[in-house]
Amino acid sequence: MESDALVSRVLGGDVRAVARAISKVEDNAADAFELMKSLFPRTGRGMIVGITGSPGAGKSSIVDRLAGLYRRRDERVGIVAVDPSSPFSGGAILGDRIRMQTLGLDPGVFIRSMATRGNLGGLARATVDAVAVLDAAGYAKIIVETVGVGQDEVEIVKTADVSVVVLVPGMGDDIQAIKAGIMEIADVFVINKADRDGVLRTEKELEALLSLATRPDTWQPPIVKTIATENKGIEELADAVAAYYEFQKTAEQGRARRRAIARWRILELLRERLLRQALDVEGIDEHLEALASQVADKQRDPYSAVEEIMRQKTGDRRQETE
Amino acid sequence: MESDALVSRVLGGDVRAVARAISKVEDNAADAFELMKSLFPRTGRGMIVGITGSPGAGKSSIVDRLAGLYRRRDERVGIVAVDPSSPFSGGAILGDRIRMQTLGLDPGVFIRSMATRGNLGGLARATVDAVAVLDAAGYAKIIVETVGVGQDEVEIVKTADVSVVVLVPGMGDDIQAIKAGIMEIADVFVINKADRDGVLRTEKELEALLSLATRPDTWQPPIVKTIATENKGIEELADAVAAYYEFQKTAEQGRARRRAIARWRILELLRERLLRQALDVEGIDEHLEALASQVADKQRDPYSAVEEIMRQKTGDRRQETE
Repeated sequence: MESDALVSRVLGGDVRAVARAISKVEDNAADAFELMKSLFPRTGRGMIVGITGSPGAGKSSIVDRLAGLYRRRDERVGIVAVDPSSPFSGGAILGDRIRMQTLGLDPGVFIRSMATRGNLGGLARATVDAVAVLDAAGYAKIIVETVGVGQDEVEIVKTADVSVVVLVPGMGDDIQAIKAGIMEIADVFVINKADRDGVLRTEKELEALLSLATRPDTWQPPIVKTIATENKGIEELADAVAAYYEFQKTAEQGRARRRAIARWRILELLRERLLRQALDVEGIDEHLEALASQVADKQRDPYSAVEEIMRQKTGDRRQETE
Repeated sequence: MESDALVSRVLGGDVRAVARAISKVEDNAADAFELMKSLFPRTGRGMIVGITGSPGAGKSSIVDRLAGLYRRRDERVGIVAVDPSSPFSGGAILGDRIRMQTLGLDPGVFIRSMATRGNLGGLARATVDAVAVLDAAGYAKIIVETVGVGQDEVEIVKTADVSVVVLVPGMGDDIQAIKAGIMEIADVFVINKADRDGVLRTEKELEALLSLATRPDTWQPPIVKTIATENKGIEELADAVAAYYEFQKTAEQGRARRRAIARWRILELLRERLLRQALDVEGIDEHLEALASQVADKQRDPYSAVEEIMRQKTGDRRQETE
């Protein structure tokens, strides 16, 4: 009942209900699963834009400016910033969110930072669920910003409708290092800080790499040059994003991509549920600590420790069935 | 029996056996668990150095040079390079490994690139296991190199005895963006490309951040300036790494860290084992594909799809017990 009320308030676009629903998926609360089940059928209306790139590339500025542009078109914008750089501390609010203060005062913009809590993982799953909450709540544009080129970050960006990779001039090494990953991800490239030296070189290098890459579809990822801090090139970026959004709706590959995303989501959810179930045993925390101590002291190996936990759980279940 | 033979060949330092053992842990082969159980008691002798930093910071050059230095001291060196940037393609060999050809011809150096296979995850677990194989095989120094500042990459670097974060001058933004994460990780900082403009500024910024940070131990992370391509500063880096290695052996916090690592390893292994068990059902691939299709077409939600998979598995187990 209380949960039903939350669902209808989220669907009605109530900002506080949205915040609460996202907290639930982030904390992996007991009722988060049911909540998401109810919201899921109402998703798929918003356009989800994933933005990634190296630290210092100016992703946050681009997100701010793009959000500002959408707002001027009177669209509600949700922003989910993923900050996984500090997995154990749990503290996550990105310092540069401060720069978003002006946006943050606008009731048509919802901003949320996501971080890993503890080491049970699930950041990617929680982020995708947070995006789904915003989608169900009627946000027309949802921007997901991730730092870095890590595995989870790549996965998160891949679940977007349109993925944008931000580069800066003079980072030839950068392009080399991340090329395998970005060639697969990027639907749109941005060269930010385009007033810096080396723009042309970066553009040429990128074009060369793009000419070698083979996408499963016929899309040619455009390269947009921006100076986000001066609000330059943002219209062009929005146009490029919109163009791919339209393209993927019709392309056969769009469906294959959505199926791959669905498969990934199912596996992520499954992984998390299984771990939660396995750890849902009385005294598991003390048990884990004891095992960790023994492993740290080389009194036992982590592999047999895992087998012990799994045996215990199976034992539990057997008792239930009896 | 065949497995016992592999164990003793790994313990004897046989390079081909080491390669085979790492393939087994990477593929998560059926006998990998038993293999690692046998090897685990023989680990803990090698020094594990984790090296991370943004793409383009010159990590690979530093790894090459550091490995070269250890070789001149007649120590066997294992290098594990993690390349998670291309999770779906599965193809992972880092292009810049080519630069390691000279090292690669040295039988005292073992080089291996790790990548995610498919989307079942487990890269962090496989990497840590690969390091353990090298450790058990008697490599005195094991260097783990990860690209990026993603969640898994951070976790991997944290499992090292000594964690090194590589920065380059003129990336003030970079430091800002990753500071929360690196302050927790780095036992040693490197400012590479120290012949570039802005070294002093980067050093000052880093010092300022370090003065604010509080580590659980009393260690003051040193800042080493290198020009890896010219082999400058590498001795100093090796000294700084050795100093922290000695420090953590005695410090009480060293034990707390090893316990945290052990706990993380247990959970990572558990997560993977549970997923594997859940997917060990006849026809699961077709079932997953069908569910993914339905979710992609919004005919059903991913949450109830997961419940269906979990119910099926429990049903299986119930039958077994009966």
